[in-house]
Amino acid sequence: VRRGFLQAGNLDQERLIDCIEKGDFEACKRELAATEAIDIARVLQDLPAEQAAVAFRLLPKDLAVQVFDRLDSVQQQQLLEGLTNEGIRVLLEAMPPDERVDLFDEVPAVVARRLLKLLSPEQRKITDSILGYREGTAGRQMTPAFVDLHEEMTVAQALERTRRLAVDRETIYTAYVIDNERHLQGTVSLKDLVLAQPNARVADIMKTTPKSVFTNTDQEEVVRFLRDYDLLAAPVVDRENRLVGIITWDDAAEIAEKEATEDIYRLGAVSAPEEGYFGARVVDVVRRRLVWLFLLIMVNTVTGYIIAGQSALLGEMLILAAFIPLLIDTAGNIGAQTATVVIRGLATAEISLPQMLTIVLREARVGLLAGTLLGAGVLGWAFLMSRKWAVAMIVSVTLIAVATVATVVGATLPFLFRRMKIDPALLSAPLLTTVMDIFGVALYFLVARLVLRI
Amino acid sequence: VRRGFLQAGNLDQERLIDCIEKGDFEACKRELAATEAIDIARVLQDLPAEQAAVAFRLLPKDLAVQVFDRLDSVQQQQLLEGLTNEGIRVLLEAMPPDERVDLFDEVPAVVARRLLKLLSPEQRKITDSILGYREGTAGRQMTPAFVDLHEEMTVAQALERTRRLAVDRETIYTAYVIDNERHLQGTVSLKDLVLAQPNARVADIMKTTPKSVFTNTDQEEVVRFLRDYDLLAAPVVDRENRLVGIITWDDAAEIAEKEATEDIYRLGAVSAPEEGYFGARVVDVVRRRLVWLFLLIMVNTVTGYIIAGQSALLGEMLILAAFIPLLIDTAGNIGAQTATVVIRGLATAEISLPQMLTIVLREARVGLLAGTLLGAGVLGWAFLMSRKWAVAMIVSVTLIAVATVATVVGATLPFLFRRMKIDPALLSAPLLTTVMDIFGVALYFLVARLVLRI
Repeated sequence: VRRGFLQAGNLDQERLIDCIEKGDFEACKRELAATEAIDIARVLQDLPAEQAAVAFRLLPKDLAVQVFDRLDSVQQQQLLEGLTNEGIRVLLEAMPPDERVDLFDEVPAVVARRLLKLLSPEQRKITDSILGYREGTAGRQMTPAFVDLHEEMTVAQALERTRRLAVDRETIYTAYVIDNERHLQGTVSLKDLVLAQPNARVADIMKTTPKSVFTNTDQEEVVRFLRDYDLLAAPVVDRENRLVGIITWDDAAEIAEKEATEDIYRLGAVSAPEEGYFGARVVDVVRRRLVWLFLLIMVNTVTGYIIAGQSALLGEMLILAAFIPLLIDTAGNIGAQTATVVIRGLATAEISLPQMLTIVLREARVGLLAGTLLGAGVLGWAFLMSRKWAVAMIVSVTLIAVATVATVVGATLPFLFRRMKIDPALLSAPLLTTVMDIFGVALYFLVARLVLRI
Repeated sequence: VRRGFLQAGNLDQERLIDCIEKGDFEACKRELAATEAIDIARVLQDLPAEQAAVAFRLLPKDLAVQVFDRLDSVQQQQLLEGLTNEGIRVLLEAMPPDERVDLFDEVPAVVARRLLKLLSPEQRKITDSILGYREGTAGRQMTPAFVDLHEEMTVAQALERTRRLAVDRETIYTAYVIDNERHLQGTVSLKDLVLAQPNARVADIMKTTPKSVFTNTDQEEVVRFLRDYDLLAAPVVDRENRLVGIITWDDAAEIAEKEATEDIYRLGAVSAPEEGYFGARVVDVVRRRLVWLFLLIMVNTVTGYIIAGQSALLGEMLILAAFIPLLIDTAGNIGAQTATVVIRGLATAEISLPQMLTIVLREARVGLLAGTLLGAGVLGWAFLMSRKWAVAMIVSVTLIAVATVATVVGATLPFLFRRMKIDPALLSAPLLTTVMDIFGVALYFLVARLVLRI
């Protein structure tokens, strides 16, 4: 039996489906109010669109916002189609500004414009200002719904203000102390407020010189910032150090997961999809992958021409062809291993640009050692298959050479990509394999000609 | 100019290095107290071991614990060697139990035993009990340092207890309501306590039916649990639903990053290292990668024998050899693309086991369509290179066939791995490439014989 939290979730879901199917709305409302947003979202995903819309309308406003946030963009759009303009307006107004911007980013531009018109002037202004920042930056991910305090307030006043603002703030666990020009002066945790004497001043208990990110800081850096400084939320300031928003840890966790998926997709030579896996049509999937496949085939042309150019040698010694896959695969694999480690190291900031030479040299040693061991291991097998010591020698020596070249190439390219400001994760295993093919066959025939003295 | 949070950090670091080098300990202490733990850790990493130990001893206890947690395991061990037994004891006692267990996991067993002996009986008991849970489970990651309340307490009493416990609890933002047998009854956020009337009862404001994870829940599931239910910490209960610990979001974020690195390494056919990149010796790196490389070469033997078996055909039409890399690479690449998407989908729980058939069929359609387009695209190029329409036909038809087979294999294998309880991420691009080679050359020669009627 599978133990874990999913068990409880499933029970709630069954009861909920049950009452929706029976059409017992009062029972539904009770069930919905007692069910977690994520579990409701999962039920809605499995329901036919109409039933999902019915169930969604039964939700109290706050819960509706939470459930909506947990649906994927395709389902969000389906749901919106099932709501009246007034229903949409109420939902949009109640959504946290950052989630609303996420939605606007994902729906078609024409829908986004229509939705924007439904907003109150105040909320539209907030949304417009966030949409003004470039995608992938802190400004685009932040929410202006934070608790702001002034340093001359007493702790009692600060707690009173926190209580008053609590309802619609993203977090109240960290409050931000600003001056009259909204410059960030310090931070106070709710913990510190609760522990302090009521008549103490905010200035006395606040943490000064608070760390912050800029509106144009890359969203990946924000994730590292929160982790490194162990904060619940990152304050976002503009060029003049004025506090304009915060990014909470749960939004950062979402960014981190998206970025990891993007990296993994790129390493697999798949363009990252805007929607989830099921959101994409087959033709779109093909289009996204085909670009890479054609590119790789173009690179492969070089390999093909090298082999075609060696037909005299191959004609003399056909058995050489049997070792081509082994050599080019091993070259590609070793290159991919090295690149994987270096790319991930660069992504998590474990290694940095200035360390390039150290790492390339280190990897070259790894390649030389691995190649020698592999070459020795393959020698006997190559002899058994070809019945010629010369061929076995050629294969072994080529293995040593390609392993060393592969580690050097695999370690160097990610650094070059980073230096050229291209995401190193675009250096996929397929791309490396294909590039290493060229080195593989070229070295193979070179070694063969040297050994055979042709 | 690079903007962002690193700027501020660098300034602090320079001042700190400056005073350590001058040996001005009073100035150092002032600098250290004003610097964030992560920035101190970065400075210590760059200092010679002795200077690092000197600087570390100047830290106030709480900050020392935070800095220590941010060092990698190699540096942690170096630092411990520079401390007296008493210094180590004070540090270990002050560390949160979950971080202490992390340390014990990473140092050699003999060192761990020595460190364990330095602990007070109380802390040793806590550490022993956490170490009793299997690695990779919630029990191993949790900390018992949470705030526990009883439902008959008033809000004022609850706040008083929270204040008293605050110093050494991992979080006070969520308190856990338990009965006399320590069964988890509900949760109360500090926000709710602050907003409630002082004479209200905890039972009235607590969230009942709290979601929890079990001590043996997989740590990856804990990350999803926190994300799905949007919690600051996950309560961990034993089989009898007794609350034994919590896992806070920052620890979950660390788990998520480690798991993503592990997945990316596996996809690149690299075994995940216990230490960071710089912690490993070259021979260990080689050993970890060689296992995979030898395995892949063994699989490659099959491909080699298939080609060797076709020497009569190849002898007649040598140009066929020139297309082998293109065909086997494309097969491997398409297989890797499909596998990447399916593996990541399984890892993030976007897709699940019962959807296997749907996804394999969907991917087969992607493969057929992509293969047909690639086959059409390559036709002219293959003719130009071989000057034979028959060869061009063979290459095109083989491409269509291998693309379809590759997507089916690439989509099926991750599901089979998951069903056999093997991590699908072990299905690396190199492994898939090598397996697809076999299909690639086999289909190639089959099509060639059919077209050439040999």
